[in-house]
Amino acid sequence: MLIVQKYGGTSVGTVERIEAVAQRVIQTRKAGNDVVVVVSAMSGETNKLLDFAAYFSKSPNQREVDMLLSSGERVTSALLAIALSELGYPAVSMSGRQAGIVTDNFHTKARIEKIDVAQMQARLNEGNIVVVAGFQGVTCNGEVSTLGRGGSDLSAVAIAGALEANLCEIYTDVDGVYTTDPRIEPKAKKLDKISYDEMLELASLGAKVLQSRSVEMAKKLNVNLVTRSSFNNNEGTLITKEDNIMEQPLVSGIALDKNQARVTLRGVTDKPGIAAEIFKKLADSNVNVDMIIQNVGHDGTTNLGFTVPQNELEATRKAMSELKASDVVEYDSDIVKVSVVGVGMKSHSGVACIAFDTMAKENINIEMISTSEIKISLVIQAKYGELAVRALHSAYKLDK
Amino acid sequence: MLIVQKYGGTSVGTVERIEAVAQRVIQTRKAGNDVVVVVSAMSGETNKLLDFAAYFSKSPNQREVDMLLSSGERVTSALLAIALSELGYPAVSMSGRQAGIVTDNFHTKARIEKIDVAQMQARLNEGNIVVVAGFQGVTCNGEVSTLGRGGSDLSAVAIAGALEANLCEIYTDVDGVYTTDPRIEPKAKKLDKISYDEMLELASLGAKVLQSRSVEMAKKLNVNLVTRSSFNNNEGTLITKEDNIMEQPLVSGIALDKNQARVTLRGVTDKPGIAAEIFKKLADSNVNVDMIIQNVGHDGTTNLGFTVPQNELEATRKAMSELKASDVVEYDSDIVKVSVVGVGMKSHSGVACIAFDTMAKENINIEMISTSEIKISLVIQAKYGELAVRALHSAYKLDK
Repeated sequence: MLIVQKYGGTSVGTVERIEAVAQRVIQTRKAGNDVVVVVSAMSGETNKLLDFAAYFSKSPNQREVDMLLSSGERVTSALLAIALSELGYPAVSMSGRQAGIVTDNFHTKARIEKIDVAQMQARLNEGNIVVVAGFQGVTCNGEVSTLGRGGSDLSAVAIAGALEANLCEIYTDVDGVYTTDPRIEPKAKKLDKISYDEMLELASLGAKVLQSRSVEMAKKLNVNLVTRSSFNNNEGTLITKEDNIMEQPLVSGIALDKNQARVTLRGVTDKPGIAAEIFKKLADSNVNVDMIIQNVGHDGTTNLGFTVPQNELEATRKAMSELKASDVVEYDSDIVKVSVVGVGMKSHSGVACIAFDTMAKENINIEMISTSEIKISLVIQAKYGELAVRALHSAYKLDK
Repeated sequence: MLIVQKYGGTSVGTVERIEAVAQRVIQTRKAGNDVVVVVSAMSGETNKLLDFAAYFSKSPNQREVDMLLSSGERVTSALLAIALSELGYPAVSMSGRQAGIVTDNFHTKARIEKIDVAQMQARLNEGNIVVVAGFQGVTCNGEVSTLGRGGSDLSAVAIAGALEANLCEIYTDVDGVYTTDPRIEPKAKKLDKISYDEMLELASLGAKVLQSRSVEMAKKLNVNLVTRSSFNNNEGTLITKEDNIMEQPLVSGIALDKNQARVTLRGVTDKPGIAAEIFKKLADSNVNVDMIIQNVGHDGTTNLGFTVPQNELEATRKAMSELKASDVVEYDSDIVKVSVVGVGMKSHSGVACIAFDTMAKENINIEMISTSEIKISLVIQAKYGELAVRALHSAYKLDK
């Protein structure tokens, strides 16, 4: 098998931990696999470099920031290659450039355009463990670029896709994907398998294991993704295509998003194009609108509700005051969004009912509802967030 | 004018110092010059990385060490480019690869084979200050390589040569080249100009301003080299070809080398090939022999004396005991070498006489003498080293 493994900043944060990573890579190699390892910068290193840059400029030249930041992953890749070689396993480090990772020109948030695997493949064929500096690539002009947040995960998934690897393992400090946050519900269970789409819903809803970009790419490239801990030997969670999961549970997990705020515009003139105008204004202000609810109006006006991230509330206020679409705009940061996610609900009716019943039994008022094929999201008062999660977790029998 | 400036690790050791370097670069730019800056890693950084590597291996893979070490200069180059841009002077950092520096394959001590200046030239033509990560290049296979000790100086001189720069300024923490070490003789004077050959003799004799490799390359490429301090605005010392120095002083400087040890082989059989055998054995043992003295022998034997660096004395002992060329081998670490250097002595007789007279007046016994066209070296007892330097400095009127 060809396995791509990615180790994050915490997993390579000290020389001792890099040594432990080397041992784990060797286990995988000894089991008869070819291994490509993708590493992040040692934890704290990227922030140190950004602090240096911030000394000189509030908005440092982005090309230069990429040159600066790309050094961190190079250091880790060289150190891990040294550690592996010393332990008797030939290894070579490769920068993003050497690994053939070509991106577009958007410095500090570049997108991978293609991977020329020739050099990696040659090094693998020679019997090497290949250690790639994550998070980075080069533009077609030969400039160093970086991939933005979660960039090393992206590097790993893209490399796994390009090399047609059997598996892409993402090592972090958590065991995998849980039915819900174990800090809220201690009975939460680790999932063995989950579909890309479910993971996307859970990731965008606040499960911090994997960034959506990586899961999207894994889905697109059909990469079998495993997220697991580098600090123990527990099996992780396999994220794969729906077809690969034999028994689809009705519901896979419950997510809690505390980062939303609700905006309500009362008495909006009910004419064509008004909603388009409002949401175009918000988009122009770089506000990411999540749920949108509009009820049937009366008297030629309607009430329009939507949620935005709390840290975009100021930008929202500014946009709304400029637009004057409504005389009465209400803002409420004291809400949370609870979501029930599961591909099984596509083919089952009554799944939403259980959620509504559960809220009713707990006397929790539902303020907004939004549903998709594989998700039911409820906006409720913030103080009920954890209670709702535990109640739903139990109602959908996720603790069994 | 096109000026290449090189700043060492101490000069870029903190963000505050990088800011000061930016100001100095801008002064040069404001004066109407095009500027290429070559930077070292922030002081301490390279050692930190080597310590990391040493954790894993006593003899880490050299290719990986180069990948590791090359990151330090990249960081500095990006930071300086950010600082310059912020101050309103467009600047781009370039890695060794981007600057077109191609080396041979000897990792950690590579030699520059050629510089493809196209990218640097293009960036300069666009009006940029070009900031090159020193100490590094790439092999023709695209592997990262580093140039060994004094590598950033070499980068600067090679770039100055390739771009046919008018001047190559090497910034350190000393003001320039002195007639002798000011810690020994406070009356030592800074030299305005000195020839490549004189500088080579002084550098190899312990003047720590510049490594011989850089001076040799400057001579070969006909680069006008200036060494000066980054901590003040004093004029430095110009190192240039002899023809450019109008008034040749008889003697330029006095150097003291405390790092030599003397080896004497008594009663060596006086037959053809015996010296060749001895010095071949030493070369095979990686011992750098400096002065060699052989007197006319008698009774078919002769005495052979030479000096070696003190830290190669052990290797010398081992080599001599294996060879058994002499029954009596004496080792003396308690000596120093004092050298009088000056191109003027080529065309003047009596220069050596002054040295011998001076030693006689101070009652210092000369144990070995060796002369070249531009140098007289004397081996004396270590305790007289400083006294001899001061006496010679005065005898050759270097304090005037």
